[in-house]
Amino acid sequence: MSDGRSRAEIAERGVNDRRTNSNVPFSGAERRAVYRAIHERRDIRSHFLPDQVPPDVLGRILDAAHHGPSVGFMQPWDFIVIRDPAVRLAVRDCFVEANRRAAEIYDGERRALYDSLKLEGLREAPVHLCVTCDRLRQKGSGLGRQTDPSTDLYSTVCAVQNLWLAARAEELGVGWVSILDFDALRKQLGIPSHVVPVAYLCIGYVSEFPANPTLESAGWETREGLGHLLHFDRWNSRDESLAAEFVNAAGR
Amino acid sequence: MSDGRSRAEIAERGVNDRRTNSNVPFSGAERRAVYRAIHERRDIRSHFLPDQVPPDVLGRILDAAHHGPSVGFMQPWDFIVIRDPAVRLAVRDCFVEANRRAAEIYDGERRALYDSLKLEGLREAPVHLCVTCDRLRQKGSGLGRQTDPSTDLYSTVCAVQNLWLAARAEELGVGWVSILDFDALRKQLGIPSHVVPVAYLCIGYVSEFPANPTLESAGWETREGLGHLLHFDRWNSRDESLAAEFVNAAGR
Repeated sequence: MSDGRSRAEIAERGVNDRRTNSNVPFSGAERRAVYRAIHERRDIRSHFLPDQVPPDVLGRILDAAHHGPSVGFMQPWDFIVIRDPAVRLAVRDCFVEANRRAAEIYDGERRALYDSLKLEGLREAPVHLCVTCDRLRQKGSGLGRQTDPSTDLYSTVCAVQNLWLAARAEELGVGWVSILDFDALRKQLGIPSHVVPVAYLCIGYVSEFPANPTLESAGWETREGLGHLLHFDRWNSRDESLAAEFVNAAGR
Repeated sequence: MSDGRSRAEIAERGVNDRRTNSNVPFSGAERRAVYRAIHERRDIRSHFLPDQVPPDVLGRILDAAHHGPSVGFMQPWDFIVIRDPAVRLAVRDCFVEANRRAAEIYDGERRALYDSLKLEGLREAPVHLCVTCDRLRQKGSGLGRQTDPSTDLYSTVCAVQNLWLAARAEELGVGWVSILDFDALRKQLGIPSHVVPVAYLCIGYVSEFPANPTLESAGWETREGLGHLLHFDRWNSRDESLAAEFVNAAGR
């Protein structure tokens, strides 16, 4: 619990009083590196290289995922690492038909644009990773989940985002493939019914990281201004000058 | 699409051939900084300091959230920044009764342990942030959501995790409060029915970041071994020696 001291008072105690390494402040360079990973992370569907990903690198990014936050410390995730070419091809089949059906809701120019997009790199990426959520996992004893049962799924997504950022720092591209026949995927991978395949990821080294999101460059969608997404104290309570202060300070 | 070149061939092209800053590789120091944020991030319920969080710092971590991945570039999130003490106190009331009911499923020693846990810092944290998901947002035109409609919620969680890691690098503690009466919360904040409050976060400077997760230190739950969570090519297809290779390489 806070003991009411201010940051200045804490700083006065000096470095020797800090109890763990965790309490050495991040340097400016470290902070910039974290923001760099966040801002240069991309959803990769193209540019995968055929190089294998060494087990130590995969181990590190999986360990990053495993250190995601989880409700009640439930750790509801499992990781299916798929490198077998036959399994990867079978999963690609789970995409093709699902994507054909998905395309049908668009017409005209929008349909032509949709058809021109490359939405997955399932054939090229040397590693697939299915991150699942075991909804019956007993760890955590239900702490924090009674008022929102979706929090186990949310925890699993936090693990995915940790992995995605770690991968960026390892120069690995990651693409999240959500257009899949999930019933067929479950069958291919033998996933039991109480386990949800939350994310199906393509992973591999890449020839480049695009400067902007692919769907932005391709003209599918524009980035919203951050200021339009800010509310103060209550929904739809806007403050343009305060919002501008936040946005300008972010310097983007 | 991959043109079949290897990493070595790409490297031979030299730095001048790289098209954006994004393609300068992360240095070892940068990579370590990203892992540091991942491994030293904590769910903070105690140790909040009363210091205000400057708008530029809040702006940066909100901008980090806004640069999370989103299905179809939908950007389904909004951010309600709550600093008004009256609103913060009202939200604290949404916790108290929900937590009283949540405690009732435990008994004996487990109940005593539950009651001893501090599960939120709603009074102490100078900033609350509600991150929401607008399920009807038209941006993205439904791309990627047809086979899994939950992907908008997942996108919102990715934004939260970006913010959480950026906050760690800014020396800001973040605590996710999931034990809330969400109907009462919606009423307090005026959130419309098509918008889901995905995460309710306490944010502030802290006197320390604990070395380990609070629920681990308190004896509520233990960390699972990463090796037990690894499957290869199919669910429940285990390979102990390969799993050991992954885990040992992670060096933890």
